[in-house]
Amino acid sequence: WNSFHSAKVLYDFIAEAGNNELTVKEGETVTITNQNIGGGWIEAQNSRGEVGLVPEDYIENFTHSNQLNSHCFHQVTRNFLIKLRLCGRVKETNQETFSLSRFPGFSKSGPEIYLLCKQLAKGKDKLTIYTGEVGPVWSYPEAQLDCIVADPKKGSKMYGLKSYIEYQITPNTTNRPVNHRYKHFDWLYERLLDKFGSAIPIPSLPDKQVTGRFEEEFIKMRMERLQGWMTRMCRHPVVSSSDVFQLFLTYKDEKDWKMGKRKAEKDETVGVMIFSTIEPEAHDLELAEVDQKCEQFSRFTKAMDDGVKEILTVGNEHWKRCTGPLPKEYQRIGKAFQNLSSVFTSSGYQGESTLTDAMTAAGKTYEEIAQMVAEQPKKDLHFLMETNNEYKGLLGCFPDTIGVHKAAIDKVKEADKLVAASKITPQDKVTMAKRVSTMSYALQAEMNHFHSNRIYDYNRVMQQYLEEQVKFYETIAAKLRQAHSQFTTM
Amino acid sequence: WNSFHSAKVLYDFIAEAGNNELTVKEGETVTITNQNIGGGWIEAQNSRGEVGLVPEDYIENFTHSNQLNSHCFHQVTRNFLIKLRLCGRVKETNQETFSLSRFPGFSKSGPEIYLLCKQLAKGKDKLTIYTGEVGPVWSYPEAQLDCIVADPKKGSKMYGLKSYIEYQITPNTTNRPVNHRYKHFDWLYERLLDKFGSAIPIPSLPDKQVTGRFEEEFIKMRMERLQGWMTRMCRHPVVSSSDVFQLFLTYKDEKDWKMGKRKAEKDETVGVMIFSTIEPEAHDLELAEVDQKCEQFSRFTKAMDDGVKEILTVGNEHWKRCTGPLPKEYQRIGKAFQNLSSVFTSSGYQGESTLTDAMTAAGKTYEEIAQMVAEQPKKDLHFLMETNNEYKGLLGCFPDTIGVHKAAIDKVKEADKLVAASKITPQDKVTMAKRVSTMSYALQAEMNHFHSNRIYDYNRVMQQYLEEQVKFYETIAAKLRQAHSQFTTM
Repeated sequence: WNSFHSAKVLYDFIAEAGNNELTVKEGETVTITNQNIGGGWIEAQNSRGEVGLVPEDYIENFTHSNQLNSHCFHQVTRNFLIKLRLCGRVKETNQETFSLSRFPGFSKSGPEIYLLCKQLAKGKDKLTIYTGEVGPVWSYPEAQLDCIVADPKKGSKMYGLKSYIEYQITPNTTNRPVNHRYKHFDWLYERLLDKFGSAIPIPSLPDKQVTGRFEEEFIKMRMERLQGWMTRMCRHPVVSSSDVFQLFLTYKDEKDWKMGKRKAEKDETVGVMIFSTIEPEAHDLELAEVDQKCEQFSRFTKAMDDGVKEILTVGNEHWKRCTGPLPKEYQRIGKAFQNLSSVFTSSGYQGESTLTDAMTAAGKTYEEIAQMVAEQPKKDLHFLMETNNEYKGLLGCFPDTIGVHKAAIDKVKEADKLVAASKITPQDKVTMAKRVSTMSYALQAEMNHFHSNRIYDYNRVMQQYLEEQVKFYETIAAKLRQAHSQFTTM
Repeated sequence: WNSFHSAKVLYDFIAEAGNNELTVKEGETVTITNQNIGGGWIEAQNSRGEVGLVPEDYIENFTHSNQLNSHCFHQVTRNFLIKLRLCGRVKETNQETFSLSRFPGFSKSGPEIYLLCKQLAKGKDKLTIYTGEVGPVWSYPEAQLDCIVADPKKGSKMYGLKSYIEYQITPNTTNRPVNHRYKHFDWLYERLLDKFGSAIPIPSLPDKQVTGRFEEEFIKMRMERLQGWMTRMCRHPVVSSSDVFQLFLTYKDEKDWKMGKRKAEKDETVGVMIFSTIEPEAHDLELAEVDQKCEQFSRFTKAMDDGVKEILTVGNEHWKRCTGPLPKEYQRIGKAFQNLSSVFTSSGYQGESTLTDAMTAAGKTYEEIAQMVAEQPKKDLHFLMETNNEYKGLLGCFPDTIGVHKAAIDKVKEADKLVAASKITPQDKVTMAKRVSTMSYALQAEMNHFHSNRIYDYNRVMQQYLEEQVKFYETIAAKLRQAHSQFTTM
């Protein structure tokens, strides 16, 4: 690579105002003027001579480390990688770079690396599964971890060349705030997915967004969603007590953070190997029961996914109507009353000011109602949609998590054949049966955790929705009662 | 005309079931099997041999009295005739026949027949205009006439060949009910329009309708509108005290009715001649003031017509939304909650029946709200629309009524020229100026009557509308509060 060579733009990119960026169009040719910017950015010049920063992933064949794996890391690839990772170990290089660019050199392997592994984790890392009232349950801490994501601040690096938003996260344990950028959340997400994804659905972070990411509305929404994601992770007994999660919430200084990061990235107990740390207290389960539980959870999560998507579809339509045609209609009703009232005022007939005042007031009331209708979705439907969106994300993780279990069950079902073909020993078969039972306990504990959270969340969101709806209709009724009282009875 | 000759069908006609009628299509050829049925009907046979009654107006060239004026009397002609009648005397023959068929042989004449007529009406027919607080006013009776239109009953005539609906009308003066069919109302309307139309807007009756006129919903709606029309006529001091109106409400027997009808049809004080019966108490008005008043009323009624039409347009759209997409959306919200609740019920997790019961109840509540939304327009918007529709009809009469006044004003403005050309005497000019002043007093009295009714009607309809709206929103709020209370706080 030479400096000042030409390159083709792969995707449209719209520059963020005041952030030294350059708007480029797919197919456009630009000159690379500085490839040593870092942080996933390069400096480029377009045909009109304008110079600015562009994400390096948006430029064809531009990589700063590995010419062989020179693809942009896009969502499809990403989802594929997540699937692979859940089934075994996927090693990625360059995890420190701009998050869109990854250069994976991975090796795929199925659940057998756990089912047949020689050594299980040592005592201190053990995750015990207890038998609670509802069945297998994780071990819950006495005090529930929680944190507040707040105070988004614009920071900059590279001598002011690049801006970013930093959030302040304050856990209820230390009450000491730590700062993190979105890319740190993304790093945490990747670590949690690597480590727990086979056993625990780790919901995706709120969407990445390049354009408009410094707009107030977007920052507020992202913060709210990061808060939701963090709260869910804090509530999870296994995730919240993990070293990597604790590091994220309570690192002391930059050195502590860097060291913790390196350690987390070297963690070998990832993918299906997480099951090697799990120790159920109860007796081993028969394969039939394991199979039946897995099927049951699969059915339930699919059905709930449909139910949640139905609410989202209906809610979206309702949102559109409430913010679109409906308030326009109330406004027109309000205007029609007011217009007729002005006509009446022009009659020259004595003593109709009570009527015209009342009609004008009624008209204004309908205009106020129009305003209320348009603003209401933000007060009620918003949380209903956010919660269901969160659940849609969570439920979207289950097919992969359950897939790992099904693959393990299938392996155990094959065990007799494998023994017969001398591919595994009879002892291996016993081990595999025991391990798939452990996996089932983990899945049951996770489902029970999911159910208990689900009941809590839906109780809360339905209450909140209905409460706001009651307030809405009561306010309208009160406004109309007031408008009504201005007319005289004759 | 021979019996059993062929004839062409002019318009589609759909037979009323069980009423001996024959469905025919425009352009179809039928055989006339009996032209002596009477009441505006003939018996015809179609090409499939089916025999039944068809309105004679629907058959080409079919008239039972006058071959020269053999056109159907349709709305366009009708409106034209109304205009002609307001300006002078229009004589119609065959007023007793099926109301769609008329054979007018009229003579048109302008307001000058009043402006220049020699003799004014005698004392007993005088309509005095007083000067009230608001200006010129009609003389109002001490007790206001009112009547109840009720109890629609199916009757038949021609030995059961033809059916009709008869309404019972009970005036508050005699408290003795009289029976009238729609065609009698129509006869009354024609008489009132003939007699008073130049001075008083006589609103049209609810639409004629051939198809579906025996359906319960239609009969109910027509009765409600006939009631509205009668109430408005009763409220008018000039109309309600007229002989023809009193005849309609209080005829003693068939003979009394027939005699009264004949007398009313012979009444010569019709068209602009109504002004010859009017006697204002106040001094004569200058032409400029007459002109200015007329312009003012013209402007006001036009502006109100626009305002009323705006309300009708907006109301119609709102009606469509409230009975169409909106309840469907609430129903879908309700179904979505209930569906998710069923999924939850299938979880197999213990102790979530409180949540699922509450979610099902919330879902059902939204289905109830859907129902309420769909039915609400009948409870509130309906009366708002009916009142505005009535006013639209009433306001539609003003251009013609005001047109008579403008024509008269124009004539008086020409008076000097006419005197100079010896077409009228100077004394005629003085008479014309006096008479146009009388017309102006009549118009002012009528406008004041209109304003006072308008204030009453809009106060009432707005109150009613808002009252029902308040009830509606309060009921929804109460239902949602009840649904909310079923969720547990955790």
